[in-house]
Amino acid sequence: MGISSYIQKHIDPNFKGNDLPFPTSQKRILPNSVLTDFNEKENRIFFIVSGIIQVNVLDPQDEIKTLDFCFENSFVTSTASFLCGKPSDVQLVAVTDCCLEVILKRDILAAYDSSLIANKLGRVEMEKVYLRRLKRERDFLTMTAKERYLELIESDSPLLKHLTVDTLAKYLGIHPSSLSRIRGEKINTI
Amino acid sequence: MGISSYIQKHIDPNFKGNDLPFPTSQKRILPNSVLTDFNEKENRIFFIVSGIIQVNVLDPQDEIKTLDFCFENSFVTSTASFLCGKPSDVQLVAVTDCCLEVILKRDILAAYDSSLIANKLGRVEMEKVYLRRLKRERDFLTMTAKERYLELIESDSPLLKHLTVDTLAKYLGIHPSSLSRIRGEKINTI
Repeated sequence: MGISSYIQKHIDPNFKGNDLPFPTSQKRILPNSVLTDFNEKENRIFFIVSGIIQVNVLDPQDEIKTLDFCFENSFVTSTASFLCGKPSDVQLVAVTDCCLEVILKRDILAAYDSSLIANKLGRVEMEKVYLRRLKRERDFLTMTAKERYLELIESDSPLLKHLTVDTLAKYLGIHPSSLSRIRGEKINTI
Repeated sequence: MGISSYIQKHIDPNFKGNDLPFPTSQKRILPNSVLTDFNEKENRIFFIVSGIIQVNVLDPQDEIKTLDFCFENSFVTSTASFLCGKPSDVQLVAVTDCCLEVILKRDILAAYDSSLIANKLGRVEMEKVYLRRLKRERDFLTMTAKERYLELIESDSPLLKHLTVDTLAKYLGIHPSSLSRIRGEKINTI
């Protein structure tokens, strides 16, 4: 799915596919490529046509932790950097081969002036980003690593095979051997 | 300032004041009135024409903590409850006499269908809510109570006289006597 189909499906069923209010470009990147680095000023929004992007942060000890995974048919950017023009406090890294559609900041800002569909898209995506952040905070506070693992594999299971044990363990905040144990328990309950 | 003037100033200078894409109503409430209670389903957005609204949460020990203050010329609602239709996890309380303009959820949702200005407003306010949340999290992690107090009185000082020492101390997460000490130090440095 590309941005046009996404808008038609999730934002406005009456949207005509050829009427995107901003130009886009295609980008392909290889696994482990850094899409946006720490301290970079983000001036792009990415739509993931296929692949998985990992969102990393630095913890107080300057170690890299994985904050989130973004899957196909969704937007990703370094949101605070994009909105404020400040250096990014997150790093976006390709987990798999990724096919992306790219919107430039200057183009979406120009579209916001007069385009209903661009503003609808921006509003709905900001609502999603906000709710996703709330959910992540609450999950970290209230769920065990096992519960978070089970939720992740329920929501996005076809793509999970691309994540290594190390990557997943970093996201869950546990040791890789603990993850192997959780996986074993899960298999035994199926 | 009302919603129309706010839109003209912050969203679109070409906006004509009589063309609001949704109906609004006026509401006046007294100090200490609860505008939205814990577990209530929020179906309104409030614009603060005058006054201060306090946003409370329950901590893990079920004690009320003050998360934020919202001042005049800004919107406030129980955002997650409004967006998802779930019971509110925050409580909105009037600190002072408040004069509010109220938008109903069904009216803003109807306006989102076809109104450019409603979507612009929704997008910009969601961007603000998101960035405000990020800032609050970072401030709690990185600033001392004194630094947060100094920042608060810099940004909104004319309204601060309405906040009692107890209310402010609850927001800063310190004992009222510590706040009195900080205030004393501040006065001595002027």
